[in-house]
Amino acid sequence: MARFVDRLLEMSRRKGSLLCVGLDVDPARIPGPLRGRSDWVYEFNRGIIEATHDLVCAYKPNLAFYEALGLQGLEALERTMSAMPPDVLVVGDAKRGDVGHTAAAYARALFDQLRFDAVTVNPYLGSDSVEPFLDREDRGVFLICKTSNPGSGDFQDLICAAPEGSMPLYQVVAFRARGWNRRGNVGLVVGATYPEQLAEVRAMAPELPLLIPGVGAQAGELERAVVDGTDAAGERVLVSSSRQVIFASSGNDWMEAARRAALGLRDEINRFRQAKATPNSGISSPSDRRSG
Amino acid sequence: MARFVDRLLEMSRRKGSLLCVGLDVDPARIPGPLRGRSDWVYEFNRGIIEATHDLVCAYKPNLAFYEALGLQGLEALERTMSAMPPDVLVVGDAKRGDVGHTAAAYARALFDQLRFDAVTVNPYLGSDSVEPFLDREDRGVFLICKTSNPGSGDFQDLICAAPEGSMPLYQVVAFRARGWNRRGNVGLVVGATYPEQLAEVRAMAPELPLLIPGVGAQAGELERAVVDGTDAAGERVLVSSSRQVIFASSGNDWMEAARRAALGLRDEINRFRQAKATPNSGISSPSDRRSG
Repeated sequence: MARFVDRLLEMSRRKGSLLCVGLDVDPARIPGPLRGRSDWVYEFNRGIIEATHDLVCAYKPNLAFYEALGLQGLEALERTMSAMPPDVLVVGDAKRGDVGHTAAAYARALFDQLRFDAVTVNPYLGSDSVEPFLDREDRGVFLICKTSNPGSGDFQDLICAAPEGSMPLYQVVAFRARGWNRRGNVGLVVGATYPEQLAEVRAMAPELPLLIPGVGAQAGELERAVVDGTDAAGERVLVSSSRQVIFASSGNDWMEAARRAALGLRDEINRFRQAKATPNSGISSPSDRRSG
Repeated sequence: MARFVDRLLEMSRRKGSLLCVGLDVDPARIPGPLRGRSDWVYEFNRGIIEATHDLVCAYKPNLAFYEALGLQGLEALERTMSAMPPDVLVVGDAKRGDVGHTAAAYARALFDQLRFDAVTVNPYLGSDSVEPFLDREDRGVFLICKTSNPGSGDFQDLICAAPEGSMPLYQVVAFRARGWNRRGNVGLVVGATYPEQLAEVRAMAPELPLLIPGVGAQAGELERAVVDGTDAAGERVLVSSSRQVIFASSGNDWMEAARRAALGLRDEINRFRQAKATPNSGISSPSDRRSG
């Protein structure tokens, strides 16, 4: 089977989309028509997928929201995976990380049981904790690098004396990730809330796909995520949005509203890609900004 | 309810045991009498618990091994939790870590759905990713600090320029963990395979319980784990062993063999505690070794 990076490029080209929609179910935000139904998790996902799958490159269920619902939630996730159309990739946002033989069990859980095309992995335990996820070249491994949350700097921004040089921890992760990318299946997670760090990671690792969560919280972040996150060809990025799309409405129009939100995001991302590719478009490149 | 640290001390005193047995099920090592049974995961755990619960302070199922078996594995874990006797604590070894509201979902999954007394948490995402686990003072949060695997040094040993001073990353984690311990429910995971680092962490954080996996792989590690890991009173430690106990035999005597292994470990741990408390016992303290 093809390397994950090629599957990602192929899918984003075929769909004309870098959009990834987070399937983060929330019992407090069930759309009216699904309230009171015992199968609301599956029906919610099915509705969102039906309404948006032609617009997205990938879906990204975060396992926390399913585990919080107990076995019922995990059954609904399995059922959602079985109903996934073939024209999308699915990233299991699990952020797992454990010692060697335990990491291998997680890889079986995520790649064999749940059949994700890619997963997120926490690198804190080191190379042998990541290795079991790297075995399959067709499955992607997005290593947590610089996360979108306010406290991400607590450890990720600490300046480290690494063999590669003195740099923040998240950059050491980016450096190592390149070395681990022997099968074309490694990517990095970098939050849109830290555009400078995003530009630095892209410059350090031009060949790695970036999964970029955290758009939507602040204006301007989407533009920077697209301009600074994509490679020279305007590719190799998944821009992830969850609540802005899936909870666009809780009324009877919840599916149409999700479609409108996804369409708007896909097109806005593509406008920024187009503008980046067009000189004198008014969209500045990272190097312009640095010299300005 | 009591603070987790007090629950742990109370349980380890009542049982006279610092032993924690890892319930890491493995389909390749099913005891003969359980082979071919569809409920072997639950029956295996039930047998191990029946044979050993009076000897242990805690059990520690690692979620990876249940997730690797799919929904059936997770059902068996739930059933195991429902059958847990009241005279043990249960640590959910999940090593989760995610941004704020997602971490809160994981806390619900682990503390409410699965009802663990404590969990392991990966600190890489920073303070706001740990905070949702700290809300309940009766539930423990063991932060991954210095892990037992060969690659643990890749990031954990990097010397960081932290506000607290220049030190390896795992020590920054230990420092921050002390600050997060406002409710008496924070602990640290430190592998027995790194006895020097274990002694350093104990010296830095005298009040935090340590969960110590990795004993059994090398001779001498158990002694160092007990002598250097326990506090001045010979307490505040869970020594975790999995395969050495639960897979002691795969024959008809699998329960008796597990009991013998647990009994041997509990008593060996207590001998080292006794020797540490007895001057001129031949057990050296960390400071003796450093000056030697």
